[in-house]
Amino acid sequence: MKSEQLSIFALGGLNEIGKNMYAIQYSDEILIIDCGIKFPDESLLGVDGIIPDITYLQDNKDKIRGLLVTHGHEDHIGGIPYLLKKLNLPVYGSRLTLGLIEIKLKEHNLLAEASLVEIDSETKLDFEYIHVSFFKTNHSIPDCVGMVFDTPEGCVVHTGDFKFDLIPINNQPPDLHKMAQIGSRGVLALLSESTNAEKPGFTPSERIVGEHLMEAFIQARGKVFVSTFASNVNRVQQVINAAHFTNRKVALLGRSMVNVVSVAIDQGYLEVPENMLIEPKSMNFYSPEQVAILCTGSQGEPMAALSRIANSSYRDVEVLPGDTVIFSSSPIPGNERGVSRIIDNLFHLGAKVIYGSGSSTGMHVSGHAYQEELRLMLTLMKPKYFVPIHGEYRMLHHHCQLAGSIGIDPQNMFILKNGDVLDLKDGQASQTRTIPAGNIYIDGLGIGSTGNIILRDRQKLSADGMLIIVIGISKTEGRIVTGPDTITRGFIYVRESEELLKEINQIAAKTVNSLLIQNHHQWNVLKKEVKEKLGHYLFKETKKRPMILPIIIEV
Amino acid sequence: MKSEQLSIFALGGLNEIGKNMYAIQYSDEILIIDCGIKFPDESLLGVDGIIPDITYLQDNKDKIRGLLVTHGHEDHIGGIPYLLKKLNLPVYGSRLTLGLIEIKLKEHNLLAEASLVEIDSETKLDFEYIHVSFFKTNHSIPDCVGMVFDTPEGCVVHTGDFKFDLIPINNQPPDLHKMAQIGSRGVLALLSESTNAEKPGFTPSERIVGEHLMEAFIQARGKVFVSTFASNVNRVQQVINAAHFTNRKVALLGRSMVNVVSVAIDQGYLEVPENMLIEPKSMNFYSPEQVAILCTGSQGEPMAALSRIANSSYRDVEVLPGDTVIFSSSPIPGNERGVSRIIDNLFHLGAKVIYGSGSSTGMHVSGHAYQEELRLMLTLMKPKYFVPIHGEYRMLHHHCQLAGSIGIDPQNMFILKNGDVLDLKDGQASQTRTIPAGNIYIDGLGIGSTGNIILRDRQKLSADGMLIIVIGISKTEGRIVTGPDTITRGFIYVRESEELLKEINQIAAKTVNSLLIQNHHQWNVLKKEVKEKLGHYLFKETKKRPMILPIIIEV
Repeated sequence: MKSEQLSIFALGGLNEIGKNMYAIQYSDEILIIDCGIKFPDESLLGVDGIIPDITYLQDNKDKIRGLLVTHGHEDHIGGIPYLLKKLNLPVYGSRLTLGLIEIKLKEHNLLAEASLVEIDSETKLDFEYIHVSFFKTNHSIPDCVGMVFDTPEGCVVHTGDFKFDLIPINNQPPDLHKMAQIGSRGVLALLSESTNAEKPGFTPSERIVGEHLMEAFIQARGKVFVSTFASNVNRVQQVINAAHFTNRKVALLGRSMVNVVSVAIDQGYLEVPENMLIEPKSMNFYSPEQVAILCTGSQGEPMAALSRIANSSYRDVEVLPGDTVIFSSSPIPGNERGVSRIIDNLFHLGAKVIYGSGSSTGMHVSGHAYQEELRLMLTLMKPKYFVPIHGEYRMLHHHCQLAGSIGIDPQNMFILKNGDVLDLKDGQASQTRTIPAGNIYIDGLGIGSTGNIILRDRQKLSADGMLIIVIGISKTEGRIVTGPDTITRGFIYVRESEELLKEINQIAAKTVNSLLIQNHHQWNVLKKEVKEKLGHYLFKETKKRPMILPIIIEV
Repeated sequence: MKSEQLSIFALGGLNEIGKNMYAIQYSDEILIIDCGIKFPDESLLGVDGIIPDITYLQDNKDKIRGLLVTHGHEDHIGGIPYLLKKLNLPVYGSRLTLGLIEIKLKEHNLLAEASLVEIDSETKLDFEYIHVSFFKTNHSIPDCVGMVFDTPEGCVVHTGDFKFDLIPINNQPPDLHKMAQIGSRGVLALLSESTNAEKPGFTPSERIVGEHLMEAFIQARGKVFVSTFASNVNRVQQVINAAHFTNRKVALLGRSMVNVVSVAIDQGYLEVPENMLIEPKSMNFYSPEQVAILCTGSQGEPMAALSRIANSSYRDVEVLPGDTVIFSSSPIPGNERGVSRIIDNLFHLGAKVIYGSGSSTGMHVSGHAYQEELRLMLTLMKPKYFVPIHGEYRMLHHHCQLAGSIGIDPQNMFILKNGDVLDLKDGQASQTRTIPAGNIYIDGLGIGSTGNIILRDRQKLSADGMLIIVIGISKTEGRIVTGPDTITRGFIYVRESEELLKEINQIAAKTVNSLLIQNHHQWNVLKKEVKEKLGHYLFKETKKRPMILPIIIEV
């Protein structure tokens, strides 16, 4: 990087939802903002997670002053263990955020060495060139902050994830006055999240969910199940409140629900009346109308609590006719089928199921600003330069249109890609450089070792299976002495395909024998010919292209 | 089946969306209604389609009098070629329906032998016991019919897919008066479709889409792309009308678009002004504002026209800044990610993209009745017994609640599963019997040969890949003489895993040698031990469980 200029870039979070990771650099000082994970779509077979490529950070590790975390969601903290394994950095975050990071670091045996520094919205961090301050925002998890980076070149604001909830459950409204002051002082560049930039209007307050939950609890006769994200502590609080009002004990199901609630209670983010929480297995000591269950799995995750309950395969807990099951969530695109399967199972069990988009049931509100709130942020900050972050391309695009509508010059808006560097010097912005950025796949214990070849093989294996053909040859005699023998998996059902298998062996034998007679002994030639001949035959007969692996052994 | 009674059952379409196939039997007379296909979800790796199991029909083929088809959508006609290969039946359908079936039979080389019988809403078919008549309905394809089966036991009505569009584009309103007459005569059992039973209200008319299309065409400056289902002939007509009004030529992209439009023009369902249709490659002879493109791919199908256009990989056609792309569709659950990918690509190309749910854009309306229309059908027919069909369990469940709301006795409602038989005798209904029903997978050219073992293997291969270990042993010498050699696919990247591979070979060699020394020569034992030892080691080292295939050869 050229020195004495300000640079802004992302290693994740642009043109995608997930693995957010942004950085601010001035001269030889780098601050990182968030380090998230992204969950793979169905095309990334076998991949467990995706994290940002941090090559640039590793190459510049002496310049990095720390990781600042906006809030405790997976797409902002999920990559931290992998980052800390490579780079030992201080991690700055608010109390709840650090609490959730700690759970994660404990699982990776990294907590002991980690340096976690608690901040709040009043904290000021003074690095050599960059001075960081914070402002409170609302989101679907408590203790979120936006960040202000005062640099010699000017002030950069990163919103983090936010909405404007003016009547929040935890009575922590957004720092509107502070935001106004920041804007008044002058903002060189605003990085603002774009998740809901396509949605007109203003997100409803979390409070309306509480009203709908209360109503459902009052009407319910049997047990009440509520499924939501564990990290939505204010939502959990409202479920607790409704349970308390209707004299129900609450059981927690699902590892993350138990973990997060425990942290939130310890840290004072959640108020739970004494003796209210019960173990799932004690549920049977109470009558159905004395029990509520808070569980994970609202996105249809097949191994999560709700899915197993709906399959009647969760020990100690069953849904009976007359029970109520509330999805306090909206299905994330891609999860609809899994969610629908659970809903169908719950109806089969006789439950009353409250499901669908939050706007239709009132049981969920988004944590991300809608268009009017994004305009409000833009108006408060009135930045010279605008960089929409945290979203797919169409969201970034819409966010720029919103910025245009409040008077920001389109020339001063930058839709960046991960790795694009925005340089700011003497009040002028330009994007001409890029740094390495990309997807690193977590696959079992392998980090970054799974690449396109492996994924292509998995794709092929998953669609058409494979066929191994084993042939033992004698070079001295110039003929096949054992086999061909065929092994298939995921291709055809062997017992019903005797004719086909016989033909496969004959083709392989004929191919190899005729090459041996012509004195072609190179295994590569033999294998290639067998593969081609069989591939052609099998596609003609089955319209499938299994992976063909000839194994030729000198006997 | 017991004789002299009326039986109703489904071989597909219950507890699912897709592969609709219902049957009415009286004594030894069976009539089949529809024969659809279902598209597999992502868990059915490599499967191309799913059709109903017709074992029962094959066992009773002498009783079947014909296949009656309600309309020409894939989930009602897609299974017909496979059915006709097994059973030679007359196929009854309206003109457009038969036209679409013909395209399908031609592709399967079955058209010559097929016996296709055209019906319209005035046709009456008299079989020995069952007398069939029809009534016109509206749906997202023209020429749909509901069916009335008059039997000695009473009258059964099957609605087919329907909505009530009182101001339809083709001026073919639903046969309301006829439906009222049918209801007045008395309906023993109503089978009514349930797709939108969860949605309150009344579907908007197809006509409103035309208004929005016209507005978008008038505003558009560059080319206009409209993507929709080819079979939605009235939608296509409205696109043609908007193009005509704005003096645009129309190019058709996508095989099904070309096929269906050609059939629809031939049969008079579509009116296209002379010289309006142009070849895609002639598009460049016109200026952008003189061209509109009708294309397939509105569901994000990766090989369809729109996806290739958005990837800039469609010959002769490109999206340029200023062009407009209209999704005249709503994404079907499960397709959102694919659709979003296309939208992002189109925004990248600089297009104005009109997308999202039909209710927000006005560019799409559903073809399936909403709750008030379902109530209207129930009220018109006022059946004694009610069987909700065509839907997932939750939809059937909601449809029963609607039936209850208009006064049908819950005792007289039957949520059946595929294969459940509802018997009606002397005015009494009971469901005590079942017949075989299930999913038959189409997998390449294989029909019904792909089963759970193959799918489980594909699942395993797709997530964790495989590892083949080849060992040549000499029984006489009691030792390994060649190998172990390891081949992996889809598991790890070999060049980065030399240590692991070395260890794998050592473990395999040690395992085999120690068994050979103990005189265990049975290959099963050797293979089992190698598999177990390696499986354990690999999971410990990689947290993956590849399929392990030991190949042990006597050398």
